[in-house]
Amino acid sequence: MITEQQLQDMHRYWQAANYLSAGQIYLQDNPLLREPLKPDHIKPRLLGHWGTSPGLSFIYVHLNRLIKETGSDVLYICGPGHGAPAIVANAYLEGSYSEIYPHVPMDEKGIKQLFRQFSTPGGIPSHVSAHTPGSIHEGGELGYSLVHAFGAAFDNPDLIVACVVGDGEAETAPLEGSWKSLSFLNPVRDGAVLPILHLNGYKIAGPTVLARKTNAELTALFSGYGYEVFFVEGSNPMVMHRNMIEILDNVYARIRSLQQRSRTGNEPVVNGWPMIIMRTPKGWTGPKEWEHQPIENSFRSHQVPLTAVKTNPEQLRLVEDWMRSYAPEKLFDKNGRLMPELQSLAPSGNKRMGMLAVANGGTVLKELQLPDFKQYAVNVPHPGTREAESTRNFGNYLRDIFELNKDHHNFRLFCPDETASNRLQAVFEKTARCFLEARMTTDDHLSPEGRVMEVLSEHLCEGWLEGYLLTGRHGLFSCYEAFITIIDSMFSQYAKWIKTSRELPWRKPVASLNYLLTSHSWRQDHNGYSHQGPGFIDTVINKKSSVTRIYFPPDANTLLSVMHHCFSSKDYANLVVAGKQPELQWLTLEEAITHCARGASVWKWAGNDEGAQPDVVIACAGDVPTLEAVAAVAVLREQLPDLKVRLVNIVDLMALSPILYHPHGLGEDAFTELFTNEAPVIFAFHGYVRIIHDLVHGRPNPERFHVRGYMEEGTTTTPFDMTVLNNMSRYQLAMEAVKRVPRMVQMRDRLNTYCEEKLKEHRSYICTYFDDLPEIKNWKWTY
Amino acid sequence: MITEQQLQDMHRYWQAANYLSAGQIYLQDNPLLREPLKPDHIKPRLLGHWGTSPGLSFIYVHLNRLIKETGSDVLYICGPGHGAPAIVANAYLEGSYSEIYPHVPMDEKGIKQLFRQFSTPGGIPSHVSAHTPGSIHEGGELGYSLVHAFGAAFDNPDLIVACVVGDGEAETAPLEGSWKSLSFLNPVRDGAVLPILHLNGYKIAGPTVLARKTNAELTALFSGYGYEVFFVEGSNPMVMHRNMIEILDNVYARIRSLQQRSRTGNEPVVNGWPMIIMRTPKGWTGPKEWEHQPIENSFRSHQVPLTAVKTNPEQLRLVEDWMRSYAPEKLFDKNGRLMPELQSLAPSGNKRMGMLAVANGGTVLKELQLPDFKQYAVNVPHPGTREAESTRNFGNYLRDIFELNKDHHNFRLFCPDETASNRLQAVFEKTARCFLEARMTTDDHLSPEGRVMEVLSEHLCEGWLEGYLLTGRHGLFSCYEAFITIIDSMFSQYAKWIKTSRELPWRKPVASLNYLLTSHSWRQDHNGYSHQGPGFIDTVINKKSSVTRIYFPPDANTLLSVMHHCFSSKDYANLVVAGKQPELQWLTLEEAITHCARGASVWKWAGNDEGAQPDVVIACAGDVPTLEAVAAVAVLREQLPDLKVRLVNIVDLMALSPILYHPHGLGEDAFTELFTNEAPVIFAFHGYVRIIHDLVHGRPNPERFHVRGYMEEGTTTTPFDMTVLNNMSRYQLAMEAVKRVPRMVQMRDRLNTYCEEKLKEHRSYICTYFDDLPEIKNWKWTY
Repeated sequence: MITEQQLQDMHRYWQAANYLSAGQIYLQDNPLLREPLKPDHIKPRLLGHWGTSPGLSFIYVHLNRLIKETGSDVLYICGPGHGAPAIVANAYLEGSYSEIYPHVPMDEKGIKQLFRQFSTPGGIPSHVSAHTPGSIHEGGELGYSLVHAFGAAFDNPDLIVACVVGDGEAETAPLEGSWKSLSFLNPVRDGAVLPILHLNGYKIAGPTVLARKTNAELTALFSGYGYEVFFVEGSNPMVMHRNMIEILDNVYARIRSLQQRSRTGNEPVVNGWPMIIMRTPKGWTGPKEWEHQPIENSFRSHQVPLTAVKTNPEQLRLVEDWMRSYAPEKLFDKNGRLMPELQSLAPSGNKRMGMLAVANGGTVLKELQLPDFKQYAVNVPHPGTREAESTRNFGNYLRDIFELNKDHHNFRLFCPDETASNRLQAVFEKTARCFLEARMTTDDHLSPEGRVMEVLSEHLCEGWLEGYLLTGRHGLFSCYEAFITIIDSMFSQYAKWIKTSRELPWRKPVASLNYLLTSHSWRQDHNGYSHQGPGFIDTVINKKSSVTRIYFPPDANTLLSVMHHCFSSKDYANLVVAGKQPELQWLTLEEAITHCARGASVWKWAGNDEGAQPDVVIACAGDVPTLEAVAAVAVLREQLPDLKVRLVNIVDLMALSPILYHPHGLGEDAFTELFTNEAPVIFAFHGYVRIIHDLVHGRPNPERFHVRGYMEEGTTTTPFDMTVLNNMSRYQLAMEAVKRVPRMVQMRDRLNTYCEEKLKEHRSYICTYFDDLPEIKNWKWTY
Repeated sequence: MITEQQLQDMHRYWQAANYLSAGQIYLQDNPLLREPLKPDHIKPRLLGHWGTSPGLSFIYVHLNRLIKETGSDVLYICGPGHGAPAIVANAYLEGSYSEIYPHVPMDEKGIKQLFRQFSTPGGIPSHVSAHTPGSIHEGGELGYSLVHAFGAAFDNPDLIVACVVGDGEAETAPLEGSWKSLSFLNPVRDGAVLPILHLNGYKIAGPTVLARKTNAELTALFSGYGYEVFFVEGSNPMVMHRNMIEILDNVYARIRSLQQRSRTGNEPVVNGWPMIIMRTPKGWTGPKEWEHQPIENSFRSHQVPLTAVKTNPEQLRLVEDWMRSYAPEKLFDKNGRLMPELQSLAPSGNKRMGMLAVANGGTVLKELQLPDFKQYAVNVPHPGTREAESTRNFGNYLRDIFELNKDHHNFRLFCPDETASNRLQAVFEKTARCFLEARMTTDDHLSPEGRVMEVLSEHLCEGWLEGYLLTGRHGLFSCYEAFITIIDSMFSQYAKWIKTSRELPWRKPVASLNYLLTSHSWRQDHNGYSHQGPGFIDTVINKKSSVTRIYFPPDANTLLSVMHHCFSSKDYANLVVAGKQPELQWLTLEEAITHCARGASVWKWAGNDEGAQPDVVIACAGDVPTLEAVAAVAVLREQLPDLKVRLVNIVDLMALSPILYHPHGLGEDAFTELFTNEAPVIFAFHGYVRIIHDLVHGRPNPERFHVRGYMEEGTTTTPFDMTVLNNMSRYQLAMEAVKRVPRMVQMRDRLNTYCEEKLKEHRSYICTYFDDLPEIKNWKWTY
């Protein structure tokens, strides 16, 4: 039982947090209000969001009590945007902040520094970010708090993830899509997620949908997802403290009991997991009104409740009254340290939410055990003479990763219901699809113990994986290429997080975010135009070069080598694009390793320049472009044996970049060795052409690069026709090559006639047989 | 009351649809099975999705009955992916298909053509698409059926939008986020959306979450959103027909009664709108099993249920038995026409769902009435001497669009709760935020009649607007720039739709999709790194140039001119990026109009080259880059009066593109006139630099273009510091310019010293005052 004194202390702790939140927004000096507040003490630019802060701190204080009493590990995920004033205040009060940032000590000077740095140039952002101790979640772009929470809970059986969802964020589609994560959480092996839906009524200016729903409607809604809803509602702080204590105890007991039931019977409980809906006034305990308009409990407290404080003495007085209402002199001692009886309310050591080990995932990361990838090599006796399915072969390697790491419980595959479609089904020899809802005997490889997370939501796959990685585990996202752009913005935010955390020495490196896009645009001929879109490459390439890596392995052995490298890396986002269809194989494993290490190489066996200055270079990146490029060279060699043509394959796209802009960029000499300084280069590229135009900008004579790639031409057709529609077929490449070589001007017509004839034949054949010409389909390298 | 005969006929009509669905997947000949099925009759490549088709046709047939009986206009939105076999079959049976595509007549030859074209090169895709009569929705990328349905229903009071949601799609985040659209639908002025959640149990390979939920859970879930749930479940066709008739009658009566109640009392009903949950076997009525594995009612019927039909005689027999089970000889007469008694079951004329006018929105489009934009001009007596907020000024124009078109009920503004934040609040003088849930007296401009759709979900804003446009109305999406990338993939799919529909003469042009990104990356200095991201420009620019337009109006008058143009255009996606902050104004309205018509111009007053060959060109696109570029020229003119410098501003980004790649591209002469052929060009760009590198590829001496833009450097800081962090400040531009002019080599040090000093001053000032140097903040053009 909690005593009245304890309750009063908790309230004062909360007041301290509220005081520090307001101080961060307003003050640059006089941090403890030792003297009357003057305009000079007010920051010249007022930034930050007060509205959500008191509620966030209220939850923090109460979770502290729970942790102290139960010894549980609790990860706090703060969904509401710009909630940093509260979370930073609490990390400071518990001592985590000063431990990590000694320049913000626990004294009056430290409080002043805490205030000044907030939302300030050279300081910290106004939302929870990588800078914030105890956070794995950025409170900038809304929608991903709950999915991150579940990702963190997977394979962390003792962890409780308390996830505060703001009612603004609750309107986003990704958040609404996240509630059903419960159907994929196995309490036997996974921790618990405790969603706390914080309804304070308003977004920036308008009311929120959920805040205006009745409790009966909310209960119906969330019970449909499998939650048992507990309400904590009101504005009287002391009543609310008592309610919250009671509900939290109740909810905690329920979590542990459902877990125990699941773990002893080994039959996971799916339904009845608790969640809290907390209704409190927006800007709770803040200024009540201004010029007869309400501030507290209205949208006017969303950001800075009073904005003219520096110039308007009446507002200055209101802010002073408000801040003094927390009685800072009773919260902090004469040195500016939190009073000892309040300090003792916070957990200590790594139990503090700001110091939780999993929130700094790199500190608990176990290296992923990787099989020797050489064992999975495809035998390639001669380039271009046999076929293999790159991803099916890679699937064997992936299967064995599951096997090797099974005791560590730290690897999962995330995929929107496409594991088998992407030819990775070998993994089902060792694991299954994870599913907690009712199962039937006819289901295929489905089990609560499965480590393949298949849900028809790219948002969930991405968000779960992000949460899983940031808490120190490993994973892979396998996806159709066109549909990975669904999570463009999530990726952008994640890349920003990684860039920022790399700049913070206390954040330890986490496993890389690995994408394998295998049902890619060029081979979605059968599924049609909507399934064709390589735009994710553009999204990735725009992000910081310290974070991003982009690979186009052209065959099975290069894919093995690339993936092995990606799984071994840290703090990167690795984008790998490789087809799942049977395709010609080019390199032996040894050649593949060398090729990948170089990033780009001349394929000597394909060309006929024999190291001399070529008339033309045909370059390629991507498996389908590689096939067409090699075939184009073959056409040229056959039709115009005098032409000296060189083939360059690029497996590491950023090798093309000037080294100034990407660490993988080839030096000037290496670039010239591949592409010469003057020869025209016909470039067949997997993605949109503009990427190559950019990458070669700054290289010698960039105008000689003539790029063919996906130009938004597509429909339901054949694989080869996709290349024809986009001007990238072997014949079109060959014609382009000859067009660019002045000394071949005499020979152009002959080649053009040959190629045009082939293209005509192609067109009439597919219209009859719905398929590619046998000579295209069964094309093999014959030199 | 329905008679037994009518019921039998309906069943046969459904069988005809199922027959045609199976035929599209399998047959290239012998379309009516006049002779025994042979391998030659089977297509060489089997594509298409059978699993969802019978259910989709079942719903179509029953909606036909409802339309016939009630005379209602019903728009069918087909959510399930690859559902074309069913929808195309029904459009064909009702005669719409042959009317639109006379080469597919209503006879045996036509049926053969229908079969052959399906999922075939030169034919039609396997999912519902722009090709499909009666559709406004592509069934490729899943997630948007319901949000499109609501967009179509807005301001269409008599329309019923029947929206079939597959249980795979129901797992996506955008779909889950769409259920709450009910809270924004006003039955007094809007039509009804009837969601039909089709649970057939499986995605590609795994079960779906909702299919495994109990009816009680589903009822709870959807009643929480405000729906009254009706179940139609089973597999016995005749029982199911009876159930569906009863439920549909019930549901229809309920819709009309709720509408009447709303419209007579003028108090909109928010809760209790009906939805149907239909549970039927996947691949219903198809092959039962193969090699002792179930096909019907399992994931094995998801796509093509038997795939070796051409080579395996046993499979061939199974497919023949299956198709003959529908008794085609009793469905089609000797000419291959649907039997007359079945024909009469379909509605006629424009009541047929395939011929519904709103599904071809251009046919019902009313031109948007636009005010004379010249009335809203900002007075600019001299360039760069006074400030204005571009979007606040534009807001007045926008307000008057609402006023001018109020009787047409065909214009809405869509925005994630940021209308006021984006300074467009003038619109609230004429309309309000739309909200149907409980309202309070303290709410700000909130009303069920509001035409401003504010929901904290970019997915909903985009999807509603798409549905609204495709049914022949007008709108604007105003959004924070960083967060518009949340709908990257939706935009990509929409751009594909528009490209495709432009190739179909029967699809009439619709109003353009207009984006105004105003809280843009450069002025999100206060909100920090997560709010900074110009990646949407890359997404748009990659799409087909016939569809995309991108504008960077640098001030208020150019914004007016650009927006006026966008609102007048059709079938484009117009991306406009313009800041909301007080910014210096450059052009008079007349100058703005001329500038916008040209796309890019020399700003003579800024430079000092006076038409002669300049030493260096400073180019800019975007309002912040323009300010820095103009200031850089001023710095150069002041510090190095001998340097001849020219300023070029680009308002229409695609003017830079070679005309071959975009219709707005400047011809070679016009390009040279602006940029010369040789002068170095220092380019300050709003977005990522790679876009400009690409656009100038193919222009004379592209390597002379030195581009500065957003390079993923950001934090919470000041506006000017954002430009410094990204190397785009006036000082950095000036230093870069001089570096590129060989004849100024002597002067470099002096300028560099000056500029470095200024940058140092800047850094120390913001660290003290959290703000930009007064000379930066109050900078005015002084020449």
